[in-house]
Amino acid sequence: MSAKVRLYVEQALGQGQTVPVARDQAHYLFGVMRLAVGARVALFNGRDGEWQAEVSEAGKRGGMLTCVEQSAPLRMPPDLWLLFAPIKKARTDFIVEKAVELGVARIVPVQTDFTNSERIRQDRLQAHAIEAAEQCGATMVPEVADLHRLDRLLDGWDAARHLVFCDEAQAGERAGMDAVPPGPAAVLIGPEGGFSEAERARLHGRDWATPVALGPRILRADTAAVAAITLWQTHLGDWR
Amino acid sequence: MSAKVRLYVEQALGQGQTVPVARDQAHYLFGVMRLAVGARVALFNGRDGEWQAEVSEAGKRGGMLTCVEQSAPLRMPPDLWLLFAPIKKARTDFIVEKAVELGVARIVPVQTDFTNSERIRQDRLQAHAIEAAEQCGATMVPEVADLHRLDRLLDGWDAARHLVFCDEAQAGERAGMDAVPPGPAAVLIGPEGGFSEAERARLHGRDWATPVALGPRILRADTAAVAAITLWQTHLGDWR
Repeated sequence: MSAKVRLYVEQALGQGQTVPVARDQAHYLFGVMRLAVGARVALFNGRDGEWQAEVSEAGKRGGMLTCVEQSAPLRMPPDLWLLFAPIKKARTDFIVEKAVELGVARIVPVQTDFTNSERIRQDRLQAHAIEAAEQCGATMVPEVADLHRLDRLLDGWDAARHLVFCDEAQAGERAGMDAVPPGPAAVLIGPEGGFSEAERARLHGRDWATPVALGPRILRADTAAVAAITLWQTHLGDWR
Repeated sequence: MSAKVRLYVEQALGQGQTVPVARDQAHYLFGVMRLAVGARVALFNGRDGEWQAEVSEAGKRGGMLTCVEQSAPLRMPPDLWLLFAPIKKARTDFIVEKAVELGVARIVPVQTDFTNSERIRQDRLQAHAIEAAEQCGATMVPEVADLHRLDRLLDGWDAARHLVFCDEAQAGERAGMDAVPPGPAAVLIGPEGGFSEAERARLHGRDWATPVALGPRILRADTAAVAAITLWQTHLGDWR
């Protein structure tokens, strides 16, 4: 019987390996989910694949899980980064969740000339990414980076990673993913106010950057993120 | 100067045509947005394209807009329907919003064997679709239908409309959009509990239905809706 609960843990996983359950997880596992000794839980840590573990001790203040068998190998997402300008809280959370489900390796919030937010709660977004990975069956959790300034990021860009950028000024044009080469990539979603002229100058005409158009309507940033990752995954990623 | 406020209205639009402003819209236009006589508003009604209108009267209890010039022709989305099983409120709202932005002609909430919700607030979802159309520059608002039972819908299915269905039992397989013929289509997103055996029997092996896989991870229904519409639009719709 496969476990219904899937948890990301920090500890090493392997045959017979025990994993202590901390107080807050104990509340969830033994209180909310009512798991008793002998119940199954699926665990992953981003390194050792997915393991089925058995509850070997269950208490209010903690407990113990014991790895029984590996149920999936480690499967890394393709080497795709998502760069996006944070927007309202709910939509930012949504972008992180969707990026993990669709399959990216790294999520980089960027501050653009027309981005309102000066800071992000990196820890909260990382916790969100963990939850999404637990939910979608991933065996690895993408890193959520701290907020980076887009201009500096572009000035130091590694040309070996191809940048696919979605510029709403291009709505209605027919630029597709066909021009994007295989290999490490990043999808950059512009802020809802669009890119500034200075940002456009840094992006256009670069060998390592390709604009992509996403249909004739104006997409919100969260929609554009899901659409662009979907297209990259289908053309060059692990959806092929 | 192009208007920043875009409104869906029921009335006919044309050169010199006047459009009365009801009390609740007056509050938004003249109170919240502080538009005065002479200010511009963009209007569309799903039939006459987009018109720039001028505020010709502005009061607390109402006002009047006068059409000045057409700013965009009527542009219908492709003949694509989205069928989906309603989930939690926020995610259902999200699916409607995204479907409008990505470009569908009709949205049909369906009740499946494993759908929890027995009813929907059709009026609320329709209002959501209007808001999304106002936001994304569409000149037409997709109809949100009432809740339909999936089994009956499939039993009476018009074979001229090709059904693309996303079955999470197929996660990891490579079925793409290549097998989907051009022409009227519908994307069907299964409920998060998956399709029942009876539903699978109604879907598989039909000439008018093609399964599509959306990568190796398990997508939530809202993610699957955006991804599947994106792929159809790129292959067969108005993103080509």
